[in-house]
Amino acid sequence: MRYEDMKIFSGTSNRAFAEQICDYLGVYIGLSTVMRFSEGNIYVKIDEKVRGKDVYIIQSIGLDPNNEFMELLFWLDAFKRSGAHSITAIIPYFSYAKADKKDEPRVSIRARVCADCIETAGVDRIVTMDLHSPQIQGFFRKPVDHLYASGLFCYDIKKQMTGDYCIVSPDEGFAKSARIYANKLNVGLCIANKQRVSHDERAEILGLIGDIDGKDAVIVDDFTISCGTLVETAKCLKERGARNIYAYVSHGLLNEKGAAALTDSLIDELVVTDTVYNPHIINREKIRVLTVSTLFAQAINIIHENESLGELFD
Amino acid sequence: MRYEDMKIFSGTSNRAFAEQICDYLGVYIGLSTVMRFSEGNIYVKIDEKVRGKDVYIIQSIGLDPNNEFMELLFWLDAFKRSGAHSITAIIPYFSYAKADKKDEPRVSIRARVCADCIETAGVDRIVTMDLHSPQIQGFFRKPVDHLYASGLFCYDIKKQMTGDYCIVSPDEGFAKSARIYANKLNVGLCIANKQRVSHDERAEILGLIGDIDGKDAVIVDDFTISCGTLVETAKCLKERGARNIYAYVSHGLLNEKGAAALTDSLIDELVVTDTVYNPHIINREKIRVLTVSTLFAQAINIIHENESLGELFD
Amino acid sequence: MRYEDMKIFSGTSNRAFAEQICDYLGVYIGLSTVMRFSEGNIYVKIDEKVRGKDVYIIQSIGLDPNNEFMELLFWLDAFKRSGAHSITAIIPYFSYAKADKKDEPRVSIRARVCADCIETAGVDRIVTMDLHSPQIQGFFRKPVDHLYASGLFCYDIKKQMTGDYCIVSPDEGFAKSARIYANKLNVGLCIANKQRVSHDERAEILGLIGDIDGKDAVIVDDFTISCGTLVETAKCLKERGARNIYAYVSHGLLNEKGAAALTDSLIDELVVTDTVYNPHIINREKIRVLTVSTLFAQAINIIHENESLGELFD
Amino acid sequence: MRYEDMKIFSGTSNRAFAEQICDYLGVYIGLSTVMRFSEGNIYVKIDEKVRGKDVYIIQSIGLDPNNEFMELLFWLDAFKRSGAHSITAIIPYFSYAKADKKDEPRVSIRARVCADCIETAGVDRIVTMDLHSPQIQGFFRKPVDHLYASGLFCYDIKKQMTGDYCIVSPDEGFAKSARIYANKLNVGLCIANKQRVSHDERAEILGLIGDIDGKDAVIVDDFTISCGTLVETAKCLKERGARNIYAYVSHGLLNEKGAAALTDSLIDELVVTDTVYNPHIINREKIRVLTVSTLFAQAINIIHENESLGELFD
Amino acid sequence: MRYEDMKIFSGTSNRAFAEQICDYLGVYIGLSTVMRFSEGNIYVKIDEKVRGKDVYIIQSIGLDPNNEFMELLFWLDAFKRSGAHSITAIIPYFSYAKADKKDEPRVSIRARVCADCIETAGVDRIVTMDLHSPQIQGFFRKPVDHLYASGLFCYDIKKQMTGDYCIVSPDEGFAKSARIYANKLNVGLCIANKQRVSHDERAEILGLIGDIDGKDAVIVDDFTISCGTLVETAKCLKERGARNIYAYVSHGLLNEKGAAALTDSLIDELVVTDTVYNPHIINREKIRVLTVSTLFAQAINIIHENESLGELFD
Amino acid sequence: MRYEDMKIFSGTSNRAFAEQICDYLGVYIGLSTVMRFSEGNIYVKIDEKVRGKDVYIIQSIGLDPNNEFMELLFWLDAFKRSGAHSITAIIPYFSYAKADKKDEPRVSIRARVCADCIETAGVDRIVTMDLHSPQIQGFFRKPVDHLYASGLFCYDIKKQMTGDYCIVSPDEGFAKSARIYANKLNVGLCIANKQRVSHDERAEILGLIGDIDGKDAVIVDDFTISCGTLVETAKCLKERGARNIYAYVSHGLLNEKGAAALTDSLIDELVVTDTVYNPHIINREKIRVLTVSTLFAQAINIIHENESLGELFD
Repeated sequence: MRYEDMKIFSGTSNRAFAEQICDYLGVYIGLSTVMRFSEGNIYVKIDEKVRGKDVYIIQSIGLDPNNEFMELLFWLDAFKRSGAHSITAIIPYFSYAKADKKDEPRVSIRARVCADCIETAGVDRIVTMDLHSPQIQGFFRKPVDHLYASGLFCYDIKKQMTGDYCIVSPDEGFAKSARIYANKLNVGLCIANKQRVSHDERAEILGLIGDIDGKDAVIVDDFTISCGTLVETAKCLKERGARNIYAYVSHGLLNEKGAAALTDSLIDELVVTDTVYNPHIINREKIRVLTVSTLFAQAINIIHENESLGELFD
Repeated sequence: MRYEDMKIFSGTSNRAFAEQICDYLGVYIGLSTVMRFSEGNIYVKIDEKVRGKDVYIIQSIGLDPNNEFMELLFWLDAFKRSGAHSITAIIPYFSYAKADKKDEPRVSIRARVCADCIETAGVDRIVTMDLHSPQIQGFFRKPVDHLYASGLFCYDIKKQMTGDYCIVSPDEGFAKSARIYANKLNVGLCIANKQRVSHDERAEILGLIGDIDGKDAVIVDDFTISCGTLVETAKCLKERGARNIYAYVSHGLLNEKGAAALTDSLIDELVVTDTVYNPHIINREKIRVLTVSTLFAQAINIIHENESLGELFD
Repeated sequence: MRYEDMKIFSGTSNRAFAEQICDYLGVYIGLSTVMRFSEGNIYVKIDEKVRGKDVYIIQSIGLDPNNEFMELLFWLDAFKRSGAHSITAIIPYFSYAKADKKDEPRVSIRARVCADCIETAGVDRIVTMDLHSPQIQGFFRKPVDHLYASGLFCYDIKKQMTGDYCIVSPDEGFAKSARIYANKLNVGLCIANKQRVSHDERAEILGLIGDIDGKDAVIVDDFTISCGTLVETAKCLKERGARNIYAYVSHGLLNEKGAAALTDSLIDELVVTDTVYNPHIINREKIRVLTVSTLFAQAINIIHENESLGELFD
Repeated sequence: MRYEDMKIFSGTSNRAFAEQICDYLGVYIGLSTVMRFSEGNIYVKIDEKVRGKDVYIIQSIGLDPNNEFMELLFWLDAFKRSGAHSITAIIPYFSYAKADKKDEPRVSIRARVCADCIETAGVDRIVTMDLHSPQIQGFFRKPVDHLYASGLFCYDIKKQMTGDYCIVSPDEGFAKSARIYANKLNVGLCIANKQRVSHDERAEILGLIGDIDGKDAVIVDDFTISCGTLVETAKCLKERGARNIYAYVSHGLLNEKGAAALTDSLIDELVVTDTVYNPHIINREKIRVLTVSTLFAQAINIIHENESLGELFD
Repeated sequence: MRYEDMKIFSGTSNRAFAEQICDYLGVYIGLSTVMRFSEGNIYVKIDEKVRGKDVYIIQSIGLDPNNEFMELLFWLDAFKRSGAHSITAIIPYFSYAKADKKDEPRVSIRARVCADCIETAGVDRIVTMDLHSPQIQGFFRKPVDHLYASGLFCYDIKKQMTGDYCIVSPDEGFAKSARIYANKLNVGLCIANKQRVSHDERAEILGLIGDIDGKDAVIVDDFTISCGTLVETAKCLKERGARNIYAYVSHGLLNEKGAAALTDSLIDELVVTDTVYNPHIINREKIRVLTVSTLFAQAINIIHENESLGELFD
Repeated sequence: MRYEDMKIFSGTSNRAFAEQICDYLGVYIGLSTVMRFSEGNIYVKIDEKVRGKDVYIIQSIGLDPNNEFMELLFWLDAFKRSGAHSITAIIPYFSYAKADKKDEPRVSIRARVCADCIETAGVDRIVTMDLHSPQIQGFFRKPVDHLYASGLFCYDIKKQMTGDYCIVSPDEGFAKSARIYANKLNVGLCIANKQRVSHDERAEILGLIGDIDGKDAVIVDDFTISCGTLVETAKCLKERGARNIYAYVSHGLLNEKGAAALTDSLIDELVVTDTVYNPHIINREKIRVLTVSTLFAQAINIIHENESLGELFD
């Protein structure tokens, strides 16, 4: 491999994740400095030569999204002004992606605002995983390489599940993605009918279509914060006769309350990935974290070698 | 109303629709010329003064989408170069909107390409209806006013349906929109499991989640071409015990084969709107066309008067 | 030659032309899929790896210009989103180029609209031939490599013409280009006085300046559709005493009526190139087609090798 | 007329012209300061309130084109940063327009560079006269209102010419424009065959097509600097039997040598407009200057009143 | 006054300031909703009609700059997508402005990044006060109206100071601004020699040029966080014989430590404005806050009435 | 060194400087043609192959700034349209940089206008020296490599100065830069109080802060035209007891009057660099010119080799 032109840097949002990527690739993380001053300003500095290099900057937009996003913009500008040959933003979780539409009058399409800022700051390519909707790729004019946790999750589900089970989508919005799981695993699909009570994170499950009686249930979703949807869906599933209940969620944004709600819930296990650094899920009862750092490392390798990402998905 | 600064023009794709809008508003359609030369080039010319005017150009991207789209671009440029004060593109149906994601490797996100071209050509605002996904608004940086057929359709469904009935989504992708219908009408929801066989328009219905036995079914969808999905869904519904089967589809793109398939199908009636000029649905057995020209006329009026579109949706 | 980084793809507008180019260069055409769905949408897909490649996409904007143009935009976007290193659009004939000015009030400068769309979609360089006016290069900000049929045509004219002859420009607008032919061939120049009757393709020849009496005539022009101008010019030339009459026209857009008009006309032979796929000129009486595929192949080679196109013109 | 929102300013290149425009319109020239420092920098300052105004800045790019062009850019930026409601650049002569193509390898298309800079600096609309080629409008994305001297010239020619005469184009490049004169005046057309000797302004007339014997000749052209082409064309015309020889040239850029050459030439009178401030043509033997300030004043009035420029051309 | 087209909205960063502005102007603050979700995302919604309105959104980028900045971007996008006629961002303090240069290798020019994002999100005009350097206006292409606290401060200084005094610049970078104070007040100037120890906020005062012996000192600066510079400068001034020591600082960003340091310092009084909401300076010993809300209200009024800001500065 | 892909070209503003750079690097200057026509238009042509090359174009914006600036834009466009791989503008002196702020109402920020034009014309990177303020880097979105004369000047000052001396800033605006000199040389700093009398270049020195009595003085500044500031500062310094007086000024823009004023002044020697071609400083009494061509040559070498410019500054 010809890694001499490649430089991987890490922002502050999920440095452990970046380290795992670099370990896999056998390179060291580029030297850099980040400071947050007492009045809140962020300062970034690249501490080694990047002129002419293909730079990969790893920065999740996670649980402190505005600080992490601004830091990313400053990284992009710093690399651009330092003469990098190309700049790839590796954004394992892109927080504002879920703000992707104008479902109320007079709101902002925040995901597009963020996409425009990232491009304005000088990015050349974006790599991310499980965007809230696939359309968000179209918010960018620059190429987006979109990775999926579903391969890893399906592999794990197959290994874990012994009896009869169904995939469960916690609402109609995720039904299409859930169908992909069901098809890959060749099992049935149930779809819950979620109703958001307000803009807070509370949700009510009004019903379920499909038959779960006597089967295990595997709820799939792209992210969870308060676990509200999962807990309510699980209740509904139990009422309908489900046996064990598992949940596979790509991005684990659980807050303390969410993690506690999970513990108290009818869910037997929640599986998430490590795209977001989140202290509330580390060594936590009922939570298992699967790493996608290898997936991202392989993607970087493929991109850098000008190969096709298709290989990753087989 | 202060209509002196307003000028409504019509492209060639759906002139009858534009005329209905102008009739409602009590204005005449702006004078213009369009020619298609024998080598295929389109030529547009504005035949009256537009300097300083707020121009509304009505052009569906319908059954001849590439010709209609290029014509729209030329209109936008002609208005811009003629010194119009503002240019609003009224696009009742925006054909390429459904090409809104990269669901295969190495394809184009055609809806974003079209959005960029429209903005490059000089549009100031877009008005459209029932985009394939709400995210497409975010493909534009200019404001998009998004109208919905659901208000009209729900009004009609309530009037038509006498017995017990369910809303049916023909696949998981439309489930979220179908849920909105079900909630508005306060009835149940069934979701079919559609599998596209290939890139042609054939689809297979593999199953149905939800209970339709002994009830009427109202399938809802955003567009249909070959009626394949509708016909297959209807078959599946009948097998599950549905009584009468109706379909409400926003954009009626039926080709001759599709219209014939509908006639031969288990569907009792298909209701569509007139966003697309389509000779195959005019005075056609089992097809009823509801006009949304009034909806668009009211929207133009509201926009021109700087009022809020919210009123339209109540 | 270092062709490993080069990938040549062909759109659907003139695939035979692309094949000839690839044959000359000894490379195969990149694998791809194009579909036109029954509702008119075009779909393109690249079927092999292009990340990091220098891509050349060959697509004439010919006799179905709007479909062919939109297809080109989607190709450009697909290559850009697939991570191509550079994208060169090879557009042997660029149909809308002739719409290059605002010669009437309130029309569009369609060639600029098209240029902007091509650049917005992501092109890096354009290669084309005999634009309607040389100024059109300035509609692009990206580099345009402009090829000329005149070298090939002059070579052929010299070979064909045995007696005394003049170059004839069919109107004042082409006079400057015709002068270049006359100078290269060291013969006299006549200029007809064409009057367009209306926006249809009819033209009237009101007169001729220059002396053709007793000489052969070689009419030169950049394109012909209905052959109206050529036929009328020929009549006028005969009245002024011309002997044999030949025409050399870069882009052969003849429709059936035009080809028939040519057969019935006083023109002895029409020579065109193969920039446009046109069934009406294949194996047609009085029409001879010279290929410029070699010219384009050499241009691609020169561009890819970072040599200077100047060599091509000697 | 509602002139309260209008403000006309003048740059330094042709202030007398601006004053005539303002006199015609009955408004005063906006107060401003321009300085050229000893190291060459230009400084501009607006000395009255322009926030919310429709600003018209009159600045020819004439005999000191680079200084005049940079001054224009600074004016545009100053108006933009001062909150003008709209900024119209009135450029009676746009010097670099003639650099509109890449007729040699590796040169700049300078007219496009200038167009881009003007748009970048913040212009909203451009008004100019007799661009070297009509395509240059397409170099701008902003609307260009293009005026013509031909109306005024034809009126004057009709008044001056008593006997039989022909319009003469000094080369093939101007033939199409000359044809418009000939048609308007209903007289014949001759076309000279000019050959540029090199990049200096020398030209050789190699021949003439058309018949001038025994008639007066009216040469028309868009600009002249050295009068070389005119003088040579006149010689050739005399040899072919022309009687009196007149020349009508839109933009009079004559240098001292050119004016002297004219005096010594076979040309009886040269008529130019006052788009360019040029001391060499004031009160000069054989030169008559027609003002187009009224034409520009009327255009400004029409634009400001949102009327159509078409009226100007009848 | 014609305020019907004007709508003033407030973000969350300094709502009291916005209320004072609205009180002065006699208008109410536009209705809106802002939420910060538990995973950190900000959501904004405009709760009244803004189509066609001239919107002023007041949002300081203050002590929580990244959250406040992202909120501002979302406001701008929401107003743009809601069809506002114009959007003016009122940014009393623009935190990242001080990151205006690349004074080390491989850092970002963060103020330019922020300027680009603000423009990308759709702003039409910016109003701010006492930017860290006047050059930052040039980071924007949109007009910036720049207000100054110096008028208010000079008025207050004149009122407060009874004896002999000097203006003191705490470092060479502020010397030019301090000179303006000294000139306006017609007193002497001293300049301290500050050395930043590192990127934290510690500073060392190495010396003082100018004579302060026996006089009062008025230190002026644009912002203070830790009061480190002020405290050290005061020490140095005392050593050189200064009597009372006052400080006038435009933007009061003091943290708790800074406010405590001030209390313990040789400074008699610190005067700041209320551009930043800062709980540490409210009712704090030795700190006096002067409001600039009236200045901003007057500026809004002047801008909205299309008058000149020059009046404000007399 | 791998110079095969590098091509250095020179504009006309300071060709001797470019030749010294090429001599140092051991490469020849790229072949090219520049003409200035009698009506003032500039024409540029590249006379050798540049496709795929990394081009460096050396053009100071010096004593004929508008002509030199326009020439630079045309070079950039010519290189872009010729397919250069990258274009670096080497601008040893960037004249309009000092017009970097809006310090009066309704003026242009001319440095930003120039930056935007340079970027619009197609530059990829800029290399320049001692910009009037460091913020100007932020006017560009493309990377700017900023060189400093201070290293060379400090080396020379150390060599020249034998006794006790101080660095003198001629006004408060340069105080921060002068402090850098004082710190590097470990000597004291004095700051003069300059007052510009008007927009002409006259300045008055109203006072001096700091102690120069009995010491030599080394005035430092970024440019001088009339030497007015230097001469006045020198007078003031003598009055305060200075012994010998030297001046080190980065960009020597002296006009004849300035050079004469220097001769007659109390200044013993003025040291400048050769960034600007200036006949008034060549072999002139009291003026010594240090070349920075080596500095620029080393910078080009470092940039081309993708090394870090940091090395240059040690």
